[in-house]
Amino acid sequence: MDVATAPIKAPKGSVDALVRLAAADMGGVDALITARLDSPVPVIPALAEHLIAAGGKRLRPLLTVAAARLAGGTDDACLKLAAAVEFIHTATLLHDDVVDGSQLRRGKVAAHLIWGGASSVLVGDFLFARSFELMVETGSLRSLAILAKASSVIAEGEVLQLTRAHDLNLDQHTYLEIIRAKTAELFAASAEAGAVSAGAPESQIAALRTYGLNLGLAFQLADDALDYSGVAETLGKNAGDDFREGKATLPLLLAIARSGPREAEFWERAIGRLDQTEADFRRAREIIVGTGALQATLDLGSDYAETAKAALAGFPDNEWRRSLEALADFSVSRPA
Amino acid sequence: MDVATAPIKAPKGSVDALVRLAAADMGGVDALITARLDSPVPVIPALAEHLIAAGGKRLRPLLTVAAARLAGGTDDACLKLAAAVEFIHTATLLHDDVVDGSQLRRGKVAAHLIWGGASSVLVGDFLFARSFELMVETGSLRSLAILAKASSVIAEGEVLQLTRAHDLNLDQHTYLEIIRAKTAELFAASAEAGAVSAGAPESQIAALRTYGLNLGLAFQLADDALDYSGVAETLGKNAGDDFREGKATLPLLLAIARSGPREAEFWERAIGRLDQTEADFRRAREIIVGTGALQATLDLGSDYAETAKAALAGFPDNEWRRSLEALADFSVSRPA
Repeated sequence: MDVATAPIKAPKGSVDALVRLAAADMGGVDALITARLDSPVPVIPALAEHLIAAGGKRLRPLLTVAAARLAGGTDDACLKLAAAVEFIHTATLLHDDVVDGSQLRRGKVAAHLIWGGASSVLVGDFLFARSFELMVETGSLRSLAILAKASSVIAEGEVLQLTRAHDLNLDQHTYLEIIRAKTAELFAASAEAGAVSAGAPESQIAALRTYGLNLGLAFQLADDALDYSGVAETLGKNAGDDFREGKATLPLLLAIARSGPREAEFWERAIGRLDQTEADFRRAREIIVGTGALQATLDLGSDYAETAKAALAGFPDNEWRRSLEALADFSVSRPA
Repeated sequence: MDVATAPIKAPKGSVDALVRLAAADMGGVDALITARLDSPVPVIPALAEHLIAAGGKRLRPLLTVAAARLAGGTDDACLKLAAAVEFIHTATLLHDDVVDGSQLRRGKVAAHLIWGGASSVLVGDFLFARSFELMVETGSLRSLAILAKASSVIAEGEVLQLTRAHDLNLDQHTYLEIIRAKTAELFAASAEAGAVSAGAPESQIAALRTYGLNLGLAFQLADDALDYSGVAETLGKNAGDDFREGKATLPLLLAIARSGPREAEFWERAIGRLDQTEADFRRAREIIVGTGALQATLDLGSDYAETAKAALAGFPDNEWRRSLEALADFSVSRPA
């Protein structure tokens, strides 16, 4: 194991407690997901299930369920909102993989490579529409407003990221705005909608939204770090995908800022013009580790994870709160 | 003018009366569309306006407004629903053009050829999400349900069409199911939502939905015919696009069924294997006209237009009803 793939810090935190606690609720969510993928057009459930059945941790619907439990309890409407949230997330993954030309997702061949980009786009549209059908059934205009707004913010974040790809001069503020929009907003909305479904007081709804937002930022920062430190088996995607696509993520931006003029030509060629070889990824990784850019990214993620935990201070110290705190720790300590 | 491009029948009906009657309401809809395209990410309004400002007849929001007027009147909620309907339609156009690789839309270069397929997919997602934000603001869960359902049906129709492209043996029933889902459902939902916003009695809501559904079928049949009889200047897209993409539309399916074994190899090569030249399109057009397949498609469209008009029989014989009747006639008599 060379320096670039060595774990940065010992794993801390876990999602296991939350998964165990929410098992019964999530069973209901999974049943809804399967039922609502049904369509007279067979390729729709086939393509969607390829991605959904591949797992992933169902983090966003878990957040909806856990927020509702912490704020009072779950009901049918809560489970429908949780399923809707997973549909929105799956739709964005399908479209992202087409947009990015990604090869792997959740350890499996990306759907667009099996069914074609056209089907991936259209099945994403189907899932998005179906998510709104689920939300309408809950009768909660407030939850609809939260998740409709999150959906348009996600699209804005994705477009912003697209227009700033290959941009070596992207500032940290804009980078954070991109990950807030494309990732953290749905985490925030998932937790907020769960709290709303439980009839929580406004202060608790706001606290759970804050928890979700900061958790999402922590997750994305860790994800962007893992792209330079992880291996495909645990990532479920190819390490180095961001580098190969020239995505201006924080580890890269910090490394560019911290490396000398000798490396400027390297970054301009490999990221600015996307003229790169496999050896270039290893060189980039060495600079990103060597300049401390990787650790700085993880440290910033840890700060957001701490902010997420602090947002829960007003809730009773029960197993749901502790499992959400453990999730925040987990977000920045996933195995490399 | 050769036989294949000669008008099939004299133009009848017009959209002009409806456009004039609805001008004030549609001014409000256009203002909403412009306002809600706003985004801190400049490429979003730029790309969306490229398509929306190119015009099109705004038929779907016109239907929402006209249905509301016929059933009682318009209000702010109605105009928001009309804008939402146009956003949904625009989102599907953006995604369709990426999926089909179309070159022209509404007489302009397709957006994905200017901004790239990735931006078109993501801006489509944005418009779709924004449409639901508009609907949420109306507070009408029923309208949300109608348009969410229509959105998932559209996606199902598009996927079904995709999986049956190049299929020389597509039956007429499945073809009609495809155009019902991908086109007529949104016409139906647009009129239905307008009637709901006006607080119309159930019988009128059902009648206006029936009008919209049959109008949509008539329009799509005429569109599919125009692809073999129109010219780019009036079509706003290239004639022959369906043929070049191997789309199994009714004029083609009828011509295949009506032409002899001598043409079987031609259809199998040009549509089944998409191995074709420009001369093949002219040959196909001659067979489609010569076998009466084009006229049969237009006749079926006229039947649906008559059914649409008949659905309005219970309404008072006022200018709104007459303009909707004229629109039904227009749908199947557009200039070739």
